Amino acid sequence: MARIVMKFGGTSMAGMERIRNVAARVKHVVEQGHEVAVVVSAMAGETDRLVGFCKEASALYDPAEYDVVVASGEQVTSGLLAMTLKAMGVDARSWLGWQLPIRTNEAHAKARIGDIDTIDLLASMRSGTVAVIPGFQGMMEDGRISTLGRGGSDTSAVAVAAAVKADRCDIYTDVDGVYTTDPRIVARARKLDLVTYEEMLELASVGAKVLQTRSVGLAMKEGVVVQVLSSFDDPTQTDLPGTLIVSEEELEAKLKEDKMERQLITGIAHDKNEAKITVTRVPDRPGAVAHIFGPLADAAINVDMIIQNVGRDKGETDVTFTVPGADLARALDVLESQKEEIGFNRVIPDTKVAKVSVVGVGMKSHAGVASTMFKSLADRGINILAISTSEIKVSVLIDEDETELAVRVLHTAYGLDAPVA
Amino acid sequence: MARIVMKFGGTSMAGMERIRNVAARVKHVVEQGHEVAVVVSAMAGETDRLVGFCKEASALYDPAEYDVVVASGEQVTSGLLAMTLKAMGVDARSWLGWQLPIRTNEAHAKARIGDIDTIDLLASMRSGTVAVIPGFQGMMEDGRISTLGRGGSDTSAVAVAAAVKADRCDIYTDVDGVYTTDPRIVARARKLDLVTYEEMLELASVGAKVLQTRSVGLAMKEGVVVQVLSSFDDPTQTDLPGTLIVSEEELEAKLKEDKMERQLITGIAHDKNEAKITVTRVPDRPGAVAHIFGPLADAAINVDMIIQNVGRDKGETDVTFTVPGADLARALDVLESQKEEIGFNRVIPDTKVAKVSVVGVGMKSHAGVASTMFKSLADRGINILAISTSEIKVSVLIDEDETELAVRVLHTAYGLDAPVA
Repeated sequence: MARIVMKFGGTSMAGMERIRNVAARVKHVVEQGHEVAVVVSAMAGETDRLVGFCKEASALYDPAEYDVVVASGEQVTSGLLAMTLKAMGVDARSWLGWQLPIRTNEAHAKARIGDIDTIDLLASMRSGTVAVIPGFQGMMEDGRISTLGRGGSDTSAVAVAAAVKADRCDIYTDVDGVYTTDPRIVARARKLDLVTYEEMLELASVGAKVLQTRSVGLAMKEGVVVQVLSSFDDPTQTDLPGTLIVSEEELEAKLKEDKMERQLITGIAHDKNEAKITVTRVPDRPGAVAHIFGPLADAAINVDMIIQNVGRDKGETDVTFTVPGADLARALDVLESQKEEIGFNRVIPDTKVAKVSVVGVGMKSHAGVASTMFKSLADRGINILAISTSEIKVSVLIDEDETELAVRVLHTAYGLDAPVA
Repeated sequence: MARIVMKFGGTSMAGMERIRNVAARVKHVVEQGHEVAVVVSAMAGETDRLVGFCKEASALYDPAEYDVVVASGEQVTSGLLAMTLKAMGVDARSWLGWQLPIRTNEAHAKARIGDIDTIDLLASMRSGTVAVIPGFQGMMEDGRISTLGRGGSDTSAVAVAAAVKADRCDIYTDVDGVYTTDPRIVARARKLDLVTYEEMLELASVGAKVLQTRSVGLAMKEGVVVQVLSSFDDPTQTDLPGTLIVSEEELEAKLKEDKMERQLITGIAHDKNEAKITVTRVPDRPGAVAHIFGPLADAAINVDMIIQNVGRDKGETDVTFTVPGADLARALDVLESQKEEIGFNRVIPDTKVAKVSVVGVGMKSHAGVASTMFKSLADRGINILAISTSEIKVSVLIDEDETELAVRVLHTAYGLDAPVA
């Protein structure tokens, strides 16, 4: 017997026929003797509909009332799933965010979960009642409804799993796991059985969007074992069919158990939502660069890769860096307003770039990962515009048109291609 | 300065454009210096949509979860109205049923309101913040959501008005008040300025559907002055444009103030949803009739008019009575199951009947109301099948085809026709 949190997204909850499928899946897990809590999203499209009303009400809508409006979507699906389970003979009840309560901080529309009261919840689960909990919502200290920001239901599920000390948090999505890379780009991409929190964070933040980044960070902090799996697979399959996200220690232990070697590289990610900015002819003196990056940081713009070019006229340099594409316009405004202080000549933006990253905890103990990357790309004539590295990741910035080619080249270079069937 | 509860139904809340109109109307009342609480229904059609999901989930859906699902409709409109008011510069906040809380008994889907905590609510209203409260919902002792049954938002508004000791509860509908009779039948029907609770109950229960009957009963019990008025009228009209529903004492006082005479008859109601049942050849001995009406009462079937016909064969009698049309099939089943005990010959149902009633507190002190009614109908050849009376009402059962004719005849006979313009 295990205690399992199951989480279903909006696509799985879109309409009563799909909710019945979810209920059948939950019933199957209950019949195996497990204690189950289910965290649900609103029906696909419903949150957009509710946000649309708020935007129609006012461009600057009140965030406290926004939370009242949008939290209703998950309220509806939790009631419907609980009644469907009961109709199938599975004891169940809904627990709304304010009923547990799931306490959050005071940031309407982007709240963070604090602690969750579990006394009543656990008593109910222990008595064999499935707990159905709306994702995305909580209650603030002042007793008002809060929501976590879009995609927050993954985080709700992990937070509930941590609070009830669940053995596993199963996140059902429309993909059947985490892949070595985007299968739409590389047909021979392989599903990963195991991935560490750190790898998942790198894979998610650079474009492999399966789980909300925040939920992975929380799972890592709380040590929640997360499984990503498909809500369209056969519900009677009882072993672990998806991708398990675990700590590095758990990964080591499982590899040892299965007598498997650790892979050098776990996956290849790409992200086309980067923008490159080059600031030309910046005075080459101490502090000049601080005039660029200080104001950008003040504006909460996340700068990723940075290169200080050399070889310009004496006493001047070009500075190149990347920012999220969505922040480009604001970044240009900030730089223009600092022109005096920085003393540059021109600012040249470029959105036709992409970041491609190789990710893997295995590279901690192996040299040569970066040089393999650079050589493989050079062999295919792909020009590297910038480089950044972390302990478990090497990223390069390239021309956007070469993204897919680069991903395929690297997937093969690191031996990730699935065997030909 | 007065304290006013304003209530808006689903038609007034159907979409952001209408919600903006409601907000403008609330703003106008606030600007006159009044303290305001607003009770809202879900958007027209929304509750049906949510109930539809529940029915799809299971024919025998769990009523506790049904309440979780359907209460969301009013949650959405209260958030939207509060944010619209704030965007218009009117301080406002929503108070959900569980936040006040509005306590109800333990009957899911048909709960009755108990007490309402008003300490925080009144403090907020006194500080100039408009309270926006979802109708139809409350919270049970166990902390779960309850709803009041369809049309319950009128009752919520009256309950809130009673709790905050409001000077008036203004119920905005799609008609501009209570009329002397259905204006679709009598073009010269007049809008009433004043009507008593008792009259309104009689007018509502016999077919003049403007307010939910339960809300009128509650207003009478709590002494809440209710005004029925149109949400489509000019919002800047500041006197009392609708129909005031008051106690008989208040009616007297206002008539005296305005030096007006009390009308003998306030209005004419009709109801085609009655069914007549004749049980033939019932033994004419003590207790026989009890065998008819006892089992019907046990089955919670409301019997209205009763006639025990005379002049049959010696020792036998025919018994005729009316029941709500919706209960006819069940009533026939009950009678059939009691055939032995009652000892009747046949049961003859008839749904082609209508009840027409003249209603007015004025008839308490005047004789001759009933005879005017019978004579006027007889003069036009309308046959009376049964009669029932109360202190403020005389009802007759007639052939359904003569309903409109009877209503027109009586409207004229009691001098209710508006002067020709």
